[in-house]
Amino acid sequence: MATSEVVNGNNTNETKGKTITCKAAVAHGPGEPFVVEKIVVQSPKKMEVRIKILYTSICHTDLSAWQGENESQQAYPRIFGHEASGVVESVGEGVSDMKEGDMVVTIFNGECGECMYCTCEKTNMCEKFGVNPMKKEMCDGTSRFSTIEGKPIFHFLNTSTFTEYTVVDSACVVKLHPQPTATLKNLTLLSCGISTGVGAAWNTANVHAGSSVAIFGLGAVGLAVAEGARARGASKIIGVDINPDKFITAQSMGITDFINPKDEVKPVYERIREMTGGGVHYSFECTGNLHVLRDAFLSVHEGWGLTVILGIHTSPKLLPIHPMELFDGRKIEASVFGGFKGKSQLPNLATKCMQGVINLDNFITHELPFEEINKAFDLLISGKSLRCLLHL
Amino acid sequence: MATSEVVNGNNTNETKGKTITCKAAVAHGPGEPFVVEKIVVQSPKKMEVRIKILYTSICHTDLSAWQGENESQQAYPRIFGHEASGVVESVGEGVSDMKEGDMVVTIFNGECGECMYCTCEKTNMCEKFGVNPMKKEMCDGTSRFSTIEGKPIFHFLNTSTFTEYTVVDSACVVKLHPQPTATLKNLTLLSCGISTGVGAAWNTANVHAGSSVAIFGLGAVGLAVAEGARARGASKIIGVDINPDKFITAQSMGITDFINPKDEVKPVYERIREMTGGGVHYSFECTGNLHVLRDAFLSVHEGWGLTVILGIHTSPKLLPIHPMELFDGRKIEASVFGGFKGKSQLPNLATKCMQGVINLDNFITHELPFEEINKAFDLLISGKSLRCLLHL
Ligand SMILES: [Zn+2]
Ligand SMILES: [Zn+2]
Ligand SMILES: [Zn+2]
Ligand SMILES: [Zn+2]
Repeated sequence: MATSEVVNGNNTNETKGKTITCKAAVAHGPGEPFVVEKIVVQSPKKMEVRIKILYTSICHTDLSAWQGENESQQAYPRIFGHEASGVVESVGEGVSDMKEGDMVVTIFNGECGECMYCTCEKTNMCEKFGVNPMKKEMCDGTSRFSTIEGKPIFHFLNTSTFTEYTVVDSACVVKLHPQPTATLKNLTLLSCGISTGVGAAWNTANVHAGSSVAIFGLGAVGLAVAEGARARGASKIIGVDINPDKFITAQSMGITDFINPKDEVKPVYERIREMTGGGVHYSFECTGNLHVLRDAFLSVHEGWGLTVILGIHTSPKLLPIHPMELFDGRKIEASVFGGFKGKSQLPNLATKCMQGVINLDNFITHELPFEEINKAFDLLISGKSLRCLLHL
Repeated sequence: MATSEVVNGNNTNETKGKTITCKAAVAHGPGEPFVVEKIVVQSPKKMEVRIKILYTSICHTDLSAWQGENESQQAYPRIFGHEASGVVESVGEGVSDMKEGDMVVTIFNGECGECMYCTCEKTNMCEKFGVNPMKKEMCDGTSRFSTIEGKPIFHFLNTSTFTEYTVVDSACVVKLHPQPTATLKNLTLLSCGISTGVGAAWNTANVHAGSSVAIFGLGAVGLAVAEGARARGASKIIGVDINPDKFITAQSMGITDFINPKDEVKPVYERIREMTGGGVHYSFECTGNLHVLRDAFLSVHEGWGLTVILGIHTSPKLLPIHPMELFDGRKIEASVFGGFKGKSQLPNLATKCMQGVINLDNFITHELPFEEINKAFDLLISGKSLRCLLHL
């Protein structure tokens, strides 16, 4: 941690090749309030990129990791956060696709471009930079963050964005091209929720014009599915949620019909079958609940219906589907990061967002200064925000 | 049962428009030996076809239905059988795609050509003539068969082929075009097992050249999957069966490697992953066993692997798969009748068989006169035959 050091430098020339001291929201224990404190960020090593974060937002994955829901994933002190946009401050040896000043978004599901998955068009997995909540250091087994006292701070989900500066593998940074002419604010959402939802509709399900869709769970991901389905020209997009308030926001995102399971006497799948002449073409499970998953599965039409799982299922129980039920021609599959290969395919999605094909405005329900990150978490926990954007 | 009657006529002109008295193998109770006896076969009604059966064979579906495994499906006396080839004897009103003398095969999974499934390219289901083991009469709710004494005999699986003459909906009869110049013997197998297996490889999985395949259960269907995969140019086709004798036959059908689970210490899926650098592209479950299904699911590669279910699962237990396991990019789906739309797509498969792209010779392990049908059932029960062809 010796050599030259710069405090919160704004000029790349000042900071390049040096450690940076800046502010970060550090988690010191499960569920403990974040402490916005000075930390030290090392220079990027080989194939790494140091990014000055401009905006970051919070998704449920941050929430459950911060709450320490999975014992085995705990590691403190740690910098959470995986949705962010910013500007490249400097690049490490070997990084040729980005340079200082480039506008970028981070991705937790990386794309090395060289492994057997990255070179296969059927998947967006990556052998080296896949989703791994257990990973808490860079590939060399060390951290690029430390406290002022020199204690290492752990990384999170290939990204760690609750900090003014972060160091990320270049595989987990998407350079936007063309570079946005306006603010990066909205595009921050491409890091996770929006890409996950829109991609599930576009890549995994391949929703077609005139089709019918049912979305179970109208959080940010579910609503992003609706935006994606609307953009594809789906003619009926049924939203299912136990919170009736959701319908108001949802209508502007393409939801045409709303079902509140609490208001229904018969199973939701039967209601949906009635509304659609036997079932929808595509259903999306965004709740992580097995009963809902079965409803989603049975709400698609025999012969061609597809259910896409997006929710995280923490119950140890197995799929509530009998093998013979698959013989009715209903399919089910999961979608990770919307099936997008991040580095190669997100720039096109960003362009679509800038053109208004996908409208991101309604997803940012709150904005706060970075220092108020604990308040932003409260908003997410209480269900009041879809996304709260933190300004750095 | 009055009007004019002909006994076992061989000349269409003699029999057309009249009832036919001929021999059939009638089941009078669950598991009771078939009685080859005289029955009366009515003329085909509107959109029906009367067929002179030349060859019929027996598959496990006949076996379990005959054994009365499912109480609710029992109906006697009944004529089982669904794999057959023959010649059109006469057609009912409105049948325009077939005429007397045409060489045909029967299909239990019909194609009406007009319903919402038949007009959708994503499925081979049919609203009117789908697979329904409960159906025991023609669409008008009556039977075309009766005993000499006039007691109605029930139909089976849209076909009923253990008889010299049968009446079938035209949706369940495939006219071969071009018409075969040689014998229909082998093509009998297109009625069920071969189409189911080859189609699972071609249509459901879409096996690609150079790919790796694992087949669990080397009965006729599993071996037909192997033939289909071999024809597509799969480079590694692993057969899994607890009967080591199967490997000898299997090698001529394209199986390149054999695993006997009884010889293995570690789980079969681990062996397969070792043999294939992480897993096969496609696995096929042809046993109807849930443990095997899980092995099949885990034996495909992360990111792109697909498991196709072909086996009939009688256990009430659910899929032994956790929802999160789908996030590894492994897919699972079922295949019915190989995904073939019978009337429109089987003629092409028949041509492929006649050209030798698919070699059917090894599937017929035994041939017997129709009268020895009980012996043919014994051969299937004892596992000695793949298919025993009965000559009428
Ligand atoms: Zn990769
Ligand atoms: Zn997220
Ligand atoms: Zn139909
Ligand atoms: Zn069969």
